[in-house]
Amino acid sequence: MTVEKPVEDPSARLDEILAHPSTVVFAGDGEPRRPEEMARRLARIASERGIRADSYSLGGAVADLEDRFARVLGKQSAVFMPTGTLANHLAVRGLCAGRPRAIVLEQSHLYHDSGDCVQRLSGINLVPVAPDRAHFTQEDAREAVARSSGGRVSSPVGALVVESPVRRQRGRVMPFDEMKRVASYCADVGIGTHLDGARLFMMSAATGISPAEYAALFDTVYVSLYKYLGAPFGAILAGSEEFCRDLYHERRMFGGGLPGSALAAALALDGLDGFEERFGQAMSRARALFSDLDTIPGLGVRAYENGSNIFRLELAPGADTRRLVRKLALALVFVSVDESDDSSIHLTVNTSVLRQTSEEIFRAFAGAVDGP
Amino acid sequence: MTVEKPVEDPSARLDEILAHPSTVVFAGDGEPRRPEEMARRLARIASERGIRADSYSLGGAVADLEDRFARVLGKQSAVFMPTGTLANHLAVRGLCAGRPRAIVLEQSHLYHDSGDCVQRLSGINLVPVAPDRAHFTQEDAREAVARSSGGRVSSPVGALVVESPVRRQRGRVMPFDEMKRVASYCADVGIGTHLDGARLFMMSAATGISPAEYAALFDTVYVSLYKYLGAPFGAILAGSEEFCRDLYHERRMFGGGLPGSALAAALALDGLDGFEERFGQAMSRARALFSDLDTIPGLGVRAYENGSNIFRLELAPGADTRRLVRKLALALVFVSVDESDDSSIHLTVNTSVLRQTSEEIFRAFAGAVDGP
Amino acid sequence: MTVEKPVEDPSARLDEILAHPSTVVFAGDGEPRRPEEMARRLARIASERGIRADSYSLGGAVADLEDRFARVLGKQSAVFMPTGTLANHLAVRGLCAGRPRAIVLEQSHLYHDSGDCVQRLSGINLVPVAPDRAHFTQEDAREAVARSSGGRVSSPVGALVVESPVRRQRGRVMPFDEMKRVASYCADVGIGTHLDGARLFMMSAATGISPAEYAALFDTVYVSLYKYLGAPFGAILAGSEEFCRDLYHERRMFGGGLPGSALAAALALDGLDGFEERFGQAMSRARALFSDLDTIPGLGVRAYENGSNIFRLELAPGADTRRLVRKLALALVFVSVDESDDSSIHLTVNTSVLRQTSEEIFRAFAGAVDGP
Amino acid sequence: MTVEKPVEDPSARLDEILAHPSTVVFAGDGEPRRPEEMARRLARIASERGIRADSYSLGGAVADLEDRFARVLGKQSAVFMPTGTLANHLAVRGLCAGRPRAIVLEQSHLYHDSGDCVQRLSGINLVPVAPDRAHFTQEDAREAVARSSGGRVSSPVGALVVESPVRRQRGRVMPFDEMKRVASYCADVGIGTHLDGARLFMMSAATGISPAEYAALFDTVYVSLYKYLGAPFGAILAGSEEFCRDLYHERRMFGGGLPGSALAAALALDGLDGFEERFGQAMSRARALFSDLDTIPGLGVRAYENGSNIFRLELAPGADTRRLVRKLALALVFVSVDESDDSSIHLTVNTSVLRQTSEEIFRAFAGAVDGP
Repeated sequence: MTVEKPVEDPSARLDEILAHPSTVVFAGDGEPRRPEEMARRLARIASERGIRADSYSLGGAVADLEDRFARVLGKQSAVFMPTGTLANHLAVRGLCAGRPRAIVLEQSHLYHDSGDCVQRLSGINLVPVAPDRAHFTQEDAREAVARSSGGRVSSPVGALVVESPVRRQRGRVMPFDEMKRVASYCADVGIGTHLDGARLFMMSAATGISPAEYAALFDTVYVSLYKYLGAPFGAILAGSEEFCRDLYHERRMFGGGLPGSALAAALALDGLDGFEERFGQAMSRARALFSDLDTIPGLGVRAYENGSNIFRLELAPGADTRRLVRKLALALVFVSVDESDDSSIHLTVNTSVLRQTSEEIFRAFAGAVDGP
Repeated sequence: MTVEKPVEDPSARLDEILAHPSTVVFAGDGEPRRPEEMARRLARIASERGIRADSYSLGGAVADLEDRFARVLGKQSAVFMPTGTLANHLAVRGLCAGRPRAIVLEQSHLYHDSGDCVQRLSGINLVPVAPDRAHFTQEDAREAVARSSGGRVSSPVGALVVESPVRRQRGRVMPFDEMKRVASYCADVGIGTHLDGARLFMMSAATGISPAEYAALFDTVYVSLYKYLGAPFGAILAGSEEFCRDLYHERRMFGGGLPGSALAAALALDGLDGFEERFGQAMSRARALFSDLDTIPGLGVRAYENGSNIFRLELAPGADTRRLVRKLALALVFVSVDESDDSSIHLTVNTSVLRQTSEEIFRAFAGAVDGP
Repeated sequence: MTVEKPVEDPSARLDEILAHPSTVVFAGDGEPRRPEEMARRLARIASERGIRADSYSLGGAVADLEDRFARVLGKQSAVFMPTGTLANHLAVRGLCAGRPRAIVLEQSHLYHDSGDCVQRLSGINLVPVAPDRAHFTQEDAREAVARSSGGRVSSPVGALVVESPVRRQRGRVMPFDEMKRVASYCADVGIGTHLDGARLFMMSAATGISPAEYAALFDTVYVSLYKYLGAPFGAILAGSEEFCRDLYHERRMFGGGLPGSALAAALALDGLDGFEERFGQAMSRARALFSDLDTIPGLGVRAYENGSNIFRLELAPGADTRRLVRKLALALVFVSVDESDDSSIHLTVNTSVLRQTSEEIFRAFAGAVDGP
Repeated sequence: MTVEKPVEDPSARLDEILAHPSTVVFAGDGEPRRPEEMARRLARIASERGIRADSYSLGGAVADLEDRFARVLGKQSAVFMPTGTLANHLAVRGLCAGRPRAIVLEQSHLYHDSGDCVQRLSGINLVPVAPDRAHFTQEDAREAVARSSGGRVSSPVGALVVESPVRRQRGRVMPFDEMKRVASYCADVGIGTHLDGARLFMMSAATGISPAEYAALFDTVYVSLYKYLGAPFGAILAGSEEFCRDLYHERRMFGGGLPGSALAAALALDGLDGFEERFGQAMSRARALFSDLDTIPGLGVRAYENGSNIFRLELAPGADTRRLVRKLALALVFVSVDESDDSSIHLTVNTSVLRQTSEEIFRAFAGAVDGP
């Protein structure tokens, strides 16, 4: 692939850079998706294979999507949800079913970034464990359950939620063995388990453990449809047939029963085609590239322990970070600086890394780091 | 317009008939919308004017839509919601704000068809008034408030909801004067008011009273985006700037903060263009047509008192209803029989009535009613 | 019994009249109980039989009380509650268990006089039936269930509550046969049933049907301990062992797990001794008396259809109601005038009717109605 | 005072020992109260000063109690509650009023021992801070608020609760200066503050800082009536007049509006008379005594940092704890061994320490520790 690189003017606007089909964007888990591009993709899908209508998110392309995810995840059933917030919420609500406590990672999205929906709307106490850490252990879970049982008034734990990768912790994953230990403990004591696997397919690409192997450890699993599969919104919540049977009513009661979800479902189905392969390719390409970048004087690339698709780019002390970013942009390589710390750059891998050859990207970094 | 009428075979499938661009569909408030058609429309919009991206239903085409509705409804602010269920819920939740009772029409959608979301998730008691009737009066509202005040433990009324037209009552509307009396009483006693105006623009087309005149009577108003405006889903909740300010967070907490809503917003904006005119034209065309149909021996068409776009077709006793329906279908005129009563046919007017000339539709009915 | 009647002065204060041990009080379901009298009674009980300590409303005199009520009501188990509000609430909450609707009489205490506790704290929709009537029928229940099932989003009925006698309806009772029809229907369709039998023992005295016969029709039953049994507060909630097992925790979670309830339990146990006999005697004495009073010119006494212990006293048009009340008071007979209608007098029977002979009470009325 | 010590038999039952009026009980915050003793005390109060009736916990002796506590705590208003669980709950519910987060000490009673009532019934997320510690600091509060603000969906903090002394932490108190720092921060950022001062009067006796000085730092304060004031149940919730105005309705809605609370109120008023003096005397007597006990070979008594009325008794390694306990019991001194650790003895000071002279108690310990 020869990359056409027309942007030579430092004043080129970020939007143009991002919109360019050859730009490698080291930010976000998916390729950037603009509404116009989605509209064009939809028109193509409509003419190529048609889009079967759903009715209030039942049937049609939505059912196709649900069937496909149930299969891929190895679950009996799967239900479309408008957002991950609702998917996680209904999972915990359903697993708890009268037992009003759920154990969550303190750093999890559900605990910090969902507006306390579970506590406010379902009256379930989310008990945060392992503060500031990237995952908890079976021992943490045991201790939290023991504390819950020790109170004077019974308030039993109905569910435990594992988030992996953890967004607030640079995409670090919970080690598979620890997941197994936690899941086995929960099974023994009758606590329901949910995997907040918003980025499950990405995690699989990073670890080589399949989505179904992860999903087998949990009663229910949520996967995002928009973070990297190209739908404008949507989520899948998968579990047993019994668990999923009445979710339609719950979804509607919460105001999430969209009259028509076929367009979103069609885009997600399209995005899922070949995703695992493509993302796996992106990850191995990126790892090799980062290993090469690490040899460039003044640059270092570090993987996180139990990391997935986020890496840390280290510059020599005193290096001009902003200048590096600008020079990379001119070569259609986009990296972003942490808002809170402008000497810190994180590289998030997604399939846009395949838009240029590794050599081209390498040259972009090499050229950006040296010289004036 | 000369209508091409290729369907001569009684076995033609209903779907084909509905899909035909010349079919007049006397069912549903909007023209039938299939996903493929939406996809094509989106591609056209994208190429003609572009579709500005939103971020979690903030900004971009969503903001354009919100601004436009705020203007049309004469409200300070308007917020996109994924469904009418959530729009109605958040309106009542916001207006009540600690006062845990709301007065609703017993036959309303919110009381019967929303899964008790307000009671279950917001702990608000919906007090149903005027059982089996199509609207309530100021006196009904006063009495309900008096009863609420008479209990031993205070549980004040925070909101009153008016639904109009009422779907469970054949689209009958609440008379404007009664709305004014109710709204004025509520203002006097400090009770918040919400209009479930899912079909507000249709009601305006039927009554000649503008959406803004209706909206002026209420603190908050909900309008549907998919019933007749052509979006796959979506709703607008409009009110004061203060009321709308934090709805973003509530919407997200409920799981209704879709990452990308620009496509739905673009379709709704497109559908709104010229809608009032087109629907008004459809209503006056239909009224004249029905008046003519009424002269056909063996047929009668009756308007409901305070009706909007639903009319009752009456056949002579013993007439073969099913045969009439079949013969109309061959002329690309679709009517549906009530599930519970196969001698009863209701004609719901939407803009598809403009797809054939009145003469053509008249001839279809005349031909269907007589002869073998 | 010769009644000492020292109060001859019209200016005697109401309190003194009520405090006098010979006063017949035709108001309230129980004899008036003042704290000092309760304190004396407690001291007597403590010295006669002792009062076993409870711990957070578990064990001791509380367990004695629970055991006794379980036996009398023919239920496996019974649990002490601080108030009837909480007893009714936890019954509905437990019976619903995830099915969020309960059918109640519109005129019931739970619907009008409990601050919407069930809706606000448990998110259960109380569906009011049979507006303004004293009881509902099996047909009303069937229709309410059918309406609940007809909504677009499932919201199943989990419980049905019968209140009898109904305080807001002059103590009228639901006919036993109708209770049986309703209970049988609910059993057939799997809806839990609760009897708000705050005044169950009084109803039994009025109808001759035993508390256990009533209780046998319902899954759970609440009986008040203070309205006529002489405790300062308290209620019993009885049901199956399984139903009652975890009520301790619910009671405590709601803030109703009083550290010490032994004093209240001891007073209730004491009040229950001989209550049925005493109240039965009061009812038959009152009925005979009212029949006699009916013969006095200018007086009429009317029973209500399906009435229990409340009767209506009718005076000749233009009679001086206030003067009658005053003259009765001088004879230590207390009657009260309705706040809203000063020509209307209701006579509520309780065991204080046994404090004077029927002849004495008759003479009091006869003397009060005639002459200046 | 010469103590009569009739119990010389090691087999004497614990109950008899505890019931003996000369027993010093180093357990519990108040003197042991049995129902019979309460009954006798009530009879005495009734005859000496009378007990004014309340109606559903309004007026009468209840109002007297509320007035007295409002005065002692320096608050505008005070409301009787049946339990501390409800008092704490309604405080947080009222202070939050739409802001759904409250900060609490992880080790607090409200977080661990109240059945998650606030989360389950009021949908408020209790955010636990300072795990395993006896109090939190202003910095902990700031950090918790910052984390709450950092989430993607707004969920503002409405209240902060201080518990002091902390029962789960051996009665340790939060230092007054730290309370002031925390309260001042909350006032600055508009977060309501509540003091769970179940044992406030005890804390004051231990620290010399008056209840009103503590109460002045907080918007609302709860004080227990049964732990050491001798009522069978009950709590006071004090705050501004506006805050307390509608608590009557909330109390009733929760099922805590007891029809008659005058007996409990009368006992609490009686217990409050002279309490501060008596408890203060008990604390200084105990401190001097413990200082003396510390000189006995083989015994040590340790105060906790920021401790209140709980001290740790240390024995020489290998000492026979059970034997010590038995020998003390024979001298009418009751101490209890921790269930989880039978070499650990905690001495909880209450006013029963005044039942014997310090010399007598000293001799009891000296005699118990040595010899066979």
